[in-house]
Amino acid sequence: MSRQIRLNAFEMNCVGHQSPGLWAHPRDRSSQYKDIEYWTDLAKLLERGKFDGLFIADVLGVYDVYGGTLDHALRHSTQIPLNDPLQIVPAMAIVTENLGFGVTASLSFEHPYTFARRISTLDHITKGRAGWNIVTSYLESGAKNIGLVGQSAHDDRYDVADEYLEVCYKLWEGSWEDDAVVRDRTRRVFTEPSKVHPIRHAGRFFQVPGVHLSEPSPQRTPVLYQAGASSRGQRFAGTNAECVFVATPSKTVLKKTVEAIRREVAAAGRDPASVLIFNLQTVIVDETDAKAQAKYKDYLNYISYDGALALGSGWMGIDFSAYAPDEPLRHIKTNAVQSSVDAFSSADPSKVWTVRELAEWIGIGGLGPIIVGGPQTAADLLQEWVDETGVDGFNLAYVVAHETFTDIVEHLVPELQKRGVYKTDYAPGTLREKLFGAGPRLPDTHPGAGFRNLGLSAQRALNAAE
Amino acid sequence: MSRQIRLNAFEMNCVGHQSPGLWAHPRDRSSQYKDIEYWTDLAKLLERGKFDGLFIADVLGVYDVYGGTLDHALRHSTQIPLNDPLQIVPAMAIVTENLGFGVTASLSFEHPYTFARRISTLDHITKGRAGWNIVTSYLESGAKNIGLVGQSAHDDRYDVADEYLEVCYKLWEGSWEDDAVVRDRTRRVFTEPSKVHPIRHAGRFFQVPGVHLSEPSPQRTPVLYQAGASSRGQRFAGTNAECVFVATPSKTVLKKTVEAIRREVAAAGRDPASVLIFNLQTVIVDETDAKAQAKYKDYLNYISYDGALALGSGWMGIDFSAYAPDEPLRHIKTNAVQSSVDAFSSADPSKVWTVRELAEWIGIGGLGPIIVGGPQTAADLLQEWVDETGVDGFNLAYVVAHETFTDIVEHLVPELQKRGVYKTDYAPGTLREKLFGAGPRLPDTHPGAGFRNLGLSAQRALNAAE
Repeated sequence: MSRQIRLNAFEMNCVGHQSPGLWAHPRDRSSQYKDIEYWTDLAKLLERGKFDGLFIADVLGVYDVYGGTLDHALRHSTQIPLNDPLQIVPAMAIVTENLGFGVTASLSFEHPYTFARRISTLDHITKGRAGWNIVTSYLESGAKNIGLVGQSAHDDRYDVADEYLEVCYKLWEGSWEDDAVVRDRTRRVFTEPSKVHPIRHAGRFFQVPGVHLSEPSPQRTPVLYQAGASSRGQRFAGTNAECVFVATPSKTVLKKTVEAIRREVAAAGRDPASVLIFNLQTVIVDETDAKAQAKYKDYLNYISYDGALALGSGWMGIDFSAYAPDEPLRHIKTNAVQSSVDAFSSADPSKVWTVRELAEWIGIGGLGPIIVGGPQTAADLLQEWVDETGVDGFNLAYVVAHETFTDIVEHLVPELQKRGVYKTDYAPGTLREKLFGAGPRLPDTHPGAGFRNLGLSAQRALNAAE
Repeated sequence: MSRQIRLNAFEMNCVGHQSPGLWAHPRDRSSQYKDIEYWTDLAKLLERGKFDGLFIADVLGVYDVYGGTLDHALRHSTQIPLNDPLQIVPAMAIVTENLGFGVTASLSFEHPYTFARRISTLDHITKGRAGWNIVTSYLESGAKNIGLVGQSAHDDRYDVADEYLEVCYKLWEGSWEDDAVVRDRTRRVFTEPSKVHPIRHAGRFFQVPGVHLSEPSPQRTPVLYQAGASSRGQRFAGTNAECVFVATPSKTVLKKTVEAIRREVAAAGRDPASVLIFNLQTVIVDETDAKAQAKYKDYLNYISYDGALALGSGWMGIDFSAYAPDEPLRHIKTNAVQSSVDAFSSADPSKVWTVRELAEWIGIGGLGPIIVGGPQTAADLLQEWVDETGVDGFNLAYVVAHETFTDIVEHLVPELQKRGVYKTDYAPGTLREKLFGAGPRLPDTHPGAGFRNLGLSAQRALNAAE
């Protein structure tokens, strides 16, 4: 049997998430991002196409590296204006039953005690369809606005992240026992007090003595996503993540990345096959190859060169405005960008990639690979990616909202289903159960599971002391 | 013409908000608070009854003063478990068109830069129906969990609050000009960069150099609610609040409170009649007086004595478990509770109030007055309160969810409408326009309006410097 393919949609509460300039396309809806109907329409569409989830990116900060100004990002709506990702989910949740939601939240921006309650609430409201994309990094422009600049070196940040997750795990997994809430109207007992435990966390960065404010949600800990690319980031993902997002335009590089991630998962004592890895991917599909190619060519007319390089400059930490459009990327040899440029150029190592071509690539869905074709061609190519790299699925960017996802649901999904590599219905249960066939709670091998039974641990400590 | 009466519903994302024990009533739905349908049903009901808004309380922290333990609060679900208030609003917003939403958020718990974006997003999603209840205080048990205990003395806290609001006003009112976002597909310009301004805030508590991440929402600044009771709190409310919530069981005290608040508003250079004051109020109404009285008597059987005193002890800062149920309240003479007890006893100064009676009063909707009667009786009494105190309306607590609100919508509202003292349809526009007949932006006399034209101010400063 062929390997199953999983699909996520990649979005952000802004205009033209990873297709700078395309908002001006006459059929694009992304400038309606402020209206909740934009989101409820999208959620219904994705559920019709049996997508596993909608993954909502976020970044606090702005793209002001390109030209040393925010003007380009503003003019071309390069991820600014940008609204809060969390609040669009409850509305989408009530118009769907199965779609999962991966919400990005940086742990630099909220205290774990209040954050843990937000996520428990989300898991309650969605009836167990909440995911959290753990972000440990930030744009400097965002960090400045909340007084974080110079707070910690790169590795320090992961020390904070480790403790932040420990606090969350204690609140989510350990504070309330499964049978604490009894809702017994006859005895008039809502919660059995003996089964709710203060977490008594006293650490280096956080002091959280109390109980979790929320009762256990269907999944307790939401499905954990991570996108760390550095070696320390991969170690963090290997320990904590259940799903990993990567953005690699070359199969050779992706294969190595997938292997490295699975090694880190195994090193953390977990089953390497239990982590789902999704590569960023743009798919432009239509009834035929010719129609898809025509659509792609039409889209190219709308890319904003400056908007795309505002994104690229922010991501890679280099000001591309200092280079002519025809400058080959390999001439740009700063340490900061070398790995990004290498990874990007690996899409076709034989080619001389220029700054202009980088802009055009980013304009069509960001840094992931681009597939253009009819249903057969697109399905063939996606299967190749899966078979040759070991990736589990794709995090699909849009070019034109919601046309790109509509085309995928109408043309690509039926073809994948015909081939038996894509589900024809959702599995039952929570997001975790749908993704992994087990749950709804974290598996016992996950480090978060180690913080269960806080009450028992406290009792043991007490007994030992007596 | 008789004075118009305004109604708000008072809720919290928990079980039996201000009616401890009543969750066990066979018709009560509040133990379904985790399900979003509980909230969407409520929102539709309130909109049918032409309520101005749903006001959602919140508190970070737990009620552990009574008996020095959290056990009572847990057993009787005294505001624990308690979920995040923000996320229930987007779902309610898509099933309603006119209902306003007042969300409680303490400014001790999130940085103003990220908070301002959350609220702008809420105002976008609700199409201009967002309100913010500004909370400056906290329960010590909550503060401990985010490392705030001992941070500041009482007045210091208002210094932080003043600066917090200044940052918010700059982001909401000043950062983006009205015509900054052009969405011009032909010219391919989304935002005119020259019309977006970094706020350059450098204060004592916060440093926020950048631009607001959200584009202007319909109201920009949400409708501002406050419930400050201390004199410093009333001054803060007089300066900033557009609506004020009070909780006074006596007309004599309420009249004085209303006058004091309007004096503070006038002292801040604003029209004292422009601030709407709502008193907490419980109304148990049915087809006839007899039926309403029977309902009230039935409800009394479900009050939890310990659950109610857990609330009362937390609010008043005294452990009522140290006193017998028949102890007269006037014997409890600590400084901390004197004003609360006096205010409470003022509901009937001739009566000897006991601890048990306090518990029974709290059990039926908290500290506000209680009205029980058929449509005519209830309407008569509410009109008396308005006429004799100058209050603008009521913040209605429920006893049994959603029965209390259903009864009000079906029995009381038609009677008030018949008397011409209650709207038969919503006014057009945003929440601010519905409440004040003007807007959608803050009036020019509000201090928040002083932070408009940040670009112009910066230009003037530049010109002056040259």
